[in-house]
Amino acid sequence: MAMKTVSENASFGGVQGVYSHAATSTACDMTFAVYLPPEAKTQKVPVLWYLSGLTCTHENAMTKAGAQAWAAAYGIAVIFPDTSPRGEGVANDEAYDLGQGAGFYVNATQAPWAPHFRMWDYVKTELPKLVFDELPLDPARQGITGHSMGGHGALTLAMTDPDTYRSVSAFAPIAHPTASDWGRKQLGAYLGPDESTWTAHDSTLLMREKGYPGEILIDQGSKDNFLDLLKPEALAEAAAKRRQPIQFRMQPGYDHSYFFVSTFMEDHVAWHAERLGA
Amino acid sequence: MAMKTVSENASFGGVQGVYSHAATSTACDMTFAVYLPPEAKTQKVPVLWYLSGLTCTHENAMTKAGAQAWAAAYGIAVIFPDTSPRGEGVANDEAYDLGQGAGFYVNATQAPWAPHFRMWDYVKTELPKLVFDELPLDPARQGITGHSMGGHGALTLAMTDPDTYRSVSAFAPIAHPTASDWGRKQLGAYLGPDESTWTAHDSTLLMREKGYPGEILIDQGSKDNFLDLLKPEALAEAAAKRRQPIQFRMQPGYDHSYFFVSTFMEDHVAWHAERLGA
Repeated sequence: MAMKTVSENASFGGVQGVYSHAATSTACDMTFAVYLPPEAKTQKVPVLWYLSGLTCTHENAMTKAGAQAWAAAYGIAVIFPDTSPRGEGVANDEAYDLGQGAGFYVNATQAPWAPHFRMWDYVKTELPKLVFDELPLDPARQGITGHSMGGHGALTLAMTDPDTYRSVSAFAPIAHPTASDWGRKQLGAYLGPDESTWTAHDSTLLMREKGYPGEILIDQGSKDNFLDLLKPEALAEAAAKRRQPIQFRMQPGYDHSYFFVSTFMEDHVAWHAERLGA
Repeated sequence: MAMKTVSENASFGGVQGVYSHAATSTACDMTFAVYLPPEAKTQKVPVLWYLSGLTCTHENAMTKAGAQAWAAAYGIAVIFPDTSPRGEGVANDEAYDLGQGAGFYVNATQAPWAPHFRMWDYVKTELPKLVFDELPLDPARQGITGHSMGGHGALTLAMTDPDTYRSVSAFAPIAHPTASDWGRKQLGAYLGPDESTWTAHDSTLLMREKGYPGEILIDQGSKDNFLDLLKPEALAEAAAKRRQPIQFRMQPGYDHSYFFVSTFMEDHVAWHAERLGA
């Protein structure tokens, strides 16, 4: 078996598992978490990918986002990948927002990042192949969401490959990284100074260029301490301009924490379950 | 104001706060968390005390137990005290199950613990006085629950003072500490070798002696890795023998983790809300 069980805990009638495997795309061992709802004991279930934010591993959202209650209620699996390659041989930076814990869901082309920092391929291709081989998950029914840097990942992946990601939502996404310090620094480091290579990784630019062939759900807290870096207004404007079907909800009083994410988790799980026929 | 705000985050329409104060019972600064549901903006709400287990601070259950969703839905506040005094001047032990993080909800009489380890007084008297003075909480409607060592605290406090704690439940409580390595070690250290002083802090013994004048809810996982230390069978037998109204639920497949606690949190919050008229 290509994946190794780190732990499995009963949760809401299903199983919260943590697994590891030797990943080829990122050339290191990777750990990820999967919540399987009760239905998975007897049938393949749809999948919601949950991409996490800066500094997170697979564990933060697994323990703090309260997703399992709703995943069980709606009969959908949730997969929590790590946010970067990790380990001693893997390049890193002292800053919290570059290197390990800050993969930004791109394939790095620049030294010293290129050998391991291939989170786009890992999340989009390698990890799906593994989990669809090993677990009772239905590859024809995948949705994607995420928080902050993970919301950026979810939106860019979904707009790039809407045939795979049949539903998409985001919590406080980094919405316009090519115009933000959460983006310019990392895209420059990972992809190099030619900014034309950055545009595929900016949801505001993708929204201007092509949008998404379905409705999008975005929640953003009005008291988020990082509004200047997230730039929700750029994405909101681009979406409105192209008449993109979207529910963009500015939630009064909420900040950037998991207290915000968990508050709206049920809405997001229900959103995906409805669109994936869970 | 006697209490200092450490943080406040919007959560499920209410507020998850963390506060600190200089406690006199434990003679050190103490930190605790309070979740206030939306109703608390306009009226006093009932209170559920949640006592945590070994090694925990106020934070573990606050972030991992998923209580806020249900506290908001049922209109009840949840208070998460710390599990011991803390700080440089406070005695400690290298073991995870003695000293800081392991107060066991007793008033220590022995050196070196006696000056600070007075969690019985802190949880039962000092902290209630503070929060009822400062927050929109109704002292006439208090219930108590807890996990593991905190389940022990909840059951012993409720059976000792049922007029204050009008509802009680527990998740995988340490049910018979005077007959367990989770208990004999700590009660001996904090209260000394005279075992007659221990009996007030053992829910099985309290159940044999007097029980509780109301129905009790207890959830216990059948795959709990600490069953030998928790001894649920002793409490179950004592309760059945005295015909104590109780729902003792052995939940198949669940372990001792927060994945277990969060799974049954809604049932516990609903249990208390119903009995407290929330």
